Amino acid sequence: MTKVGVVGGTGYTGVELLRLLALHPDVQLHAVTSRGEAGTRVADLFPNLRGHVDLAFTEPDMDVLAACDLVFFATPNGVAMSMARELLERGVRLIDLAADFRLRDADAWRQWYGMEHACPDLLQEAVYGLPEVNRAAIAGARLVANPGCYPTAVQLGLLPLIEAGCIDREGLIADCKSGVSGAGRGAAVATLLSEAAESLKAYAVPGHRHLPEIRQGLERAAGAAVGLTFVPHLTPMIRGIHATLYARRTDGDVDVQAVFEARYRAEPFVDVLPAGSHPETRTVKGANDCRIAVHQAPDGQTLVVLSVIDNLVKGAAGQAVQNMNIMLGVEERSGLRLVGLIP
Amino acid sequence: MTKVGVVGGTGYTGVELLRLLALHPDVQLHAVTSRGEAGTRVADLFPNLRGHVDLAFTEPDMDVLAACDLVFFATPNGVAMSMARELLERGVRLIDLAADFRLRDADAWRQWYGMEHACPDLLQEAVYGLPEVNRAAIAGARLVANPGCYPTAVQLGLLPLIEAGCIDREGLIADCKSGVSGAGRGAAVATLLSEAAESLKAYAVPGHRHLPEIRQGLERAAGAAVGLTFVPHLTPMIRGIHATLYARRTDGDVDVQAVFEARYRAEPFVDVLPAGSHPETRTVKGANDCRIAVHQAPDGQTLVVLSVIDNLVKGAAGQAVQNMNIMLGVEERSGLRLVGLIP
Amino acid sequence: MTKVGVVGGTGYTGVELLRLLALHPDVQLHAVTSRGEAGTRVADLFPNLRGHVDLAFTEPDMDVLAACDLVFFATPNGVAMSMARELLERGVRLIDLAADFRLRDADAWRQWYGMEHACPDLLQEAVYGLPEVNRAAIAGARLVANPGCYPTAVQLGLLPLIEAGCIDREGLIADCKSGVSGAGRGAAVATLLSEAAESLKAYAVPGHRHLPEIRQGLERAAGAAVGLTFVPHLTPMIRGIHATLYARRTDGDVDVQAVFEARYRAEPFVDVLPAGSHPETRTVKGANDCRIAVHQAPDGQTLVVLSVIDNLVKGAAGQAVQNMNIMLGVEERSGLRLVGLIP
Amino acid sequence: MTKVGVVGGTGYTGVELLRLLALHPDVQLHAVTSRGEAGTRVADLFPNLRGHVDLAFTEPDMDVLAACDLVFFATPNGVAMSMARELLERGVRLIDLAADFRLRDADAWRQWYGMEHACPDLLQEAVYGLPEVNRAAIAGARLVANPGCYPTAVQLGLLPLIEAGCIDREGLIADCKSGVSGAGRGAAVATLLSEAAESLKAYAVPGHRHLPEIRQGLERAAGAAVGLTFVPHLTPMIRGIHATLYARRTDGDVDVQAVFEARYRAEPFVDVLPAGSHPETRTVKGANDCRIAVHQAPDGQTLVVLSVIDNLVKGAAGQAVQNMNIMLGVEERSGLRLVGLIP
Repeated sequence: MTKVGVVGGTGYTGVELLRLLALHPDVQLHAVTSRGEAGTRVADLFPNLRGHVDLAFTEPDMDVLAACDLVFFATPNGVAMSMARELLERGVRLIDLAADFRLRDADAWRQWYGMEHACPDLLQEAVYGLPEVNRAAIAGARLVANPGCYPTAVQLGLLPLIEAGCIDREGLIADCKSGVSGAGRGAAVATLLSEAAESLKAYAVPGHRHLPEIRQGLERAAGAAVGLTFVPHLTPMIRGIHATLYARRTDGDVDVQAVFEARYRAEPFVDVLPAGSHPETRTVKGANDCRIAVHQAPDGQTLVVLSVIDNLVKGAAGQAVQNMNIMLGVEERSGLRLVGLIP
Repeated sequence: MTKVGVVGGTGYTGVELLRLLALHPDVQLHAVTSRGEAGTRVADLFPNLRGHVDLAFTEPDMDVLAACDLVFFATPNGVAMSMARELLERGVRLIDLAADFRLRDADAWRQWYGMEHACPDLLQEAVYGLPEVNRAAIAGARLVANPGCYPTAVQLGLLPLIEAGCIDREGLIADCKSGVSGAGRGAAVATLLSEAAESLKAYAVPGHRHLPEIRQGLERAAGAAVGLTFVPHLTPMIRGIHATLYARRTDGDVDVQAVFEARYRAEPFVDVLPAGSHPETRTVKGANDCRIAVHQAPDGQTLVVLSVIDNLVKGAAGQAVQNMNIMLGVEERSGLRLVGLIP
Repeated sequence: MTKVGVVGGTGYTGVELLRLLALHPDVQLHAVTSRGEAGTRVADLFPNLRGHVDLAFTEPDMDVLAACDLVFFATPNGVAMSMARELLERGVRLIDLAADFRLRDADAWRQWYGMEHACPDLLQEAVYGLPEVNRAAIAGARLVANPGCYPTAVQLGLLPLIEAGCIDREGLIADCKSGVSGAGRGAAVATLLSEAAESLKAYAVPGHRHLPEIRQGLERAAGAAVGLTFVPHLTPMIRGIHATLYARRTDGDVDVQAVFEARYRAEPFVDVLPAGSHPETRTVKGANDCRIAVHQAPDGQTLVVLSVIDNLVKGAAGQAVQNMNIMLGVEERSGLRLVGLIP
Repeated sequence: MTKVGVVGGTGYTGVELLRLLALHPDVQLHAVTSRGEAGTRVADLFPNLRGHVDLAFTEPDMDVLAACDLVFFATPNGVAMSMARELLERGVRLIDLAADFRLRDADAWRQWYGMEHACPDLLQEAVYGLPEVNRAAIAGARLVANPGCYPTAVQLGLLPLIEAGCIDREGLIADCKSGVSGAGRGAAVATLLSEAAESLKAYAVPGHRHLPEIRQGLERAAGAAVGLTFVPHLTPMIRGIHATLYARRTDGDVDVQAVFEARYRAEPFVDVLPAGSHPETRTVKGANDCRIAVHQAPDGQTLVVLSVIDNLVKGAAGQAVQNMNIMLGVEERSGLRLVGLIP
């Protein structure tokens, strides 16, 4: 059994990770840390874990973490980069679910995240943990940057078209809708039920941190610059991201349905729906799947890609476990045989 | 007091119209018809109207309706066109909340609505009831076609830019999110709470009936063809439409905030928010307002307009009352001084 | 026009009060105070009030408030009692929407609210603002204690049976379900959408502050002690209280339906439904009504009363306006002709 | 591998059963029948099952079903009783998730379900599938009547007190709140999102079919008659039942917390929470657990038990799988190691 630790297990990404690790056949949960909740039993904070997780939160102790084979960071941005070097030096492999290692460019990171990066050299080593792009590199990585939720849904939806070279790389639009859990478990007026239920709004139209992450991924695939407008929306549900992606086709003869099917045929967690489908986010609620459909709009020029994930699973904790499986060399689906909760 | 009738008052558009008419100081509700519910007291079907509406549903009787000064049709598509001519001939003014008179082209109507139009000549007479465009014509109209919900939100969001001639008329994108009440009060599996809550999906990507209606309005304003992709989404809330509109600017010097403010300065129900705002649908829940914000995306080329309405008020019954007020020459806000329900 | 002020207008009770006062024909809003938001325009914090309220929040200044005819306190517990005496002395009438003046017994108040009462003498003068019980006293009152939300729903549901003397005063049960807005607009983890949606829980079973308030009202009506168990529940909706009340009948011959109808025949805001009805909270969403149905359970002994209100209207701001109307001698329904928002 | 069949897999109980069976290590899904959907692939109707269930719905063919070792009925009431005898005679074991075999008394069944029972003799043989009461009988049963959702939550909450003899058997009250999925997947106006969201109502106060089922279970435990009032409520969430149970204690010295802990110490799926707890339904969302807390009300006499389940899991499909595990002699938790989905 692989010994794993979780740093910062009190947010939604953390509790979802604990749910998945508690049921995972190949790993043993060794430590769950939280400065704020040290001493509290994990199952007292999250009673769904009663009978499944029998640990208490502990202070983040380097020696305890160093005794793990692999450590997940489910912490706010800026924490993982402060602990990564020592843990790596002590032979621990790391998966960061926050944003510390997602951008390769330390200047861009500072600009979008408002702090100096603590270890820019590790930005070069870190592998961007989108298995559908980087599986081989992930397998050998010491340090994996787990992608953001929006970037996962958007990249999986656009990469096949970019790689096929059949769309205009300018004027891409990603209109994304997220459940409220994406905003985290922090107490805040804007995400109270009384504020966020029965309402819908766009936010961060002038610029969102996931924009440079998405652009970096698309540009790597394109080998060229891409022009992207990304508008996230807060929607009145707990889980789920629906990305609606618009691109102009440059080659009207390409069978885009076939492009998607070929691209993801071997992928265990990307499900290309039959032509004409409209995926619902609930089909992936609690599951690690990304479901995708591609349409041509009535104008004959615009392609519309619909891509749905659970922001906490394929958009966070599930993808982290998928990355772990790849790193450990166990079956990629291990611990992730989950069926979306309908109804 | 003006005597008004409502044909087909059992759907959501109908009950919302009754809510507004019950409190309207200038009109008296004379008859509410329903084939299916004839004999039932209105307030038994909709207990929120207890103490406010003291009528029973009746069979749609021509003589009763002809005794009204003005009749609303809150019926399925195809009903109003079968009764309109006789009522007009008997001197009754009509507002159709369904789609029978929204398109000027009878061929297009047949194609999108799947039936032959019963009175194509009235299509020419009917006035499209978007007060912000057609106020003068509405004042004198016998027959008003009340706009669809999506078309209201999208047209109010795009018209200022089209009229100002500062955007590319090709490649417009309207990504729209609607509450479930837009799907009506009919029993259907897809709109059960257990299906539609905690989920989100696009629908009708290959073509939706509101597409030709929106295009017709934009082309009238542009005096030229426009290229538009329209994707509606079903979202887990009861009321509200959020239209997120994307256009490429052709003139980088135009102050788009000023364009919107100038266009709507005198409009009682269109509220242009300060630059940088993100309107929430809940700010118009139960109210007749359309709130709009305009942003320039980080790419420097794409304009993003955010336009929100309550689909049942400004997107249906409220706009119908606004049209009625204009037709009757009473204060346009009469009966429509409503504040969005927050929280 | 009566000049009114609102102290503490930033919570849900406050914004609802502002919604009602903005549309009220007999009053003019003179000042809205908030220490935390002084200087902010009210409509910037609550955009639903754009175009309806043209004031900014100000510091709570005694001279400004003393210039009002009547002042509402929509503040946390403990604020009104610190300002009441001076305002009363300066001739201002007061309605406190918090709990400072609800209990007549200063010892009980200290025990349940955890602080010493600042002016126990005013507890004797204050009139408990349940118009269905105290209308005449309210009319002449200087200081009205607006009832709590649960106490309103429970008392209106039980008083007719208590007054009729046809139930056992021991073993009363009030199982109450509230929307989340009852917990207020403060940032808190427990009322985040991601925590409170798709879930339901009881809380405060060992004792809730509304228990002594309810008991005080019932005992006043009974002229004797009553035994009551009160269990509140948090339910996944924004607004609404549903009280399910259980009592054992002592007299099997009493026509309880007739008891309720007689008791509330003249009440403008209490609606006794026909026998066999099950009121829905949405029928009063945004309205000042209390709808009530009474059933006999299959065991032949237990009476079940179903009582619904909107916790922010009849359970708070609407009842406050109703009390104000009574105090001012204007029509009791003035500004309160509201229809519940269905759907 | 045990071959299992599901008759009627198109409702919510059915799809939940398929979710559990698809992941169950000890069984192989042999057939899923539906008259209405015969020929449709199961995963086309329920896309969450894509990649997990590779069958199409078939007509309910006796020979196909007889080839199964065990067949579940997830059908409307009245179907299982029409097919049970033949399948039993052909050696198939049966679990009925509907109500056909829940009541032992054929007269009571006819009265509450409005039809004659097709095989009253089997009513005597059928074992009521509440493992916490009937585990041994279930192990040997040919025919198991899976309990109703409300009866599961209520019985598990009251049985320890009844068995301990420490409460008054008269005047029991079960105030129950259910998510909308309990009303099934049939198209109906009352359970549309636009009707059932943001609202709450009691229903069936004059009598609900689960009342005789609960009473039968409690009376079996008591060995005497019990007096019970049962009021179900429809609440705006998809899954979950919260039963709030009221009983008068007859013996003030009994440590009721200890009674519950002792009663359920060995039960794999009943979790007695620490004293003072308030269980949330979301802690069991998607899981087979029942979580229970017991309180003494402030009046010193009334016991309040809070019991939560997921109506589709422990209240239906999960309990059916638990019963199957017992019947097959495999580990009772097999296929049921599920963690509630938080958030």
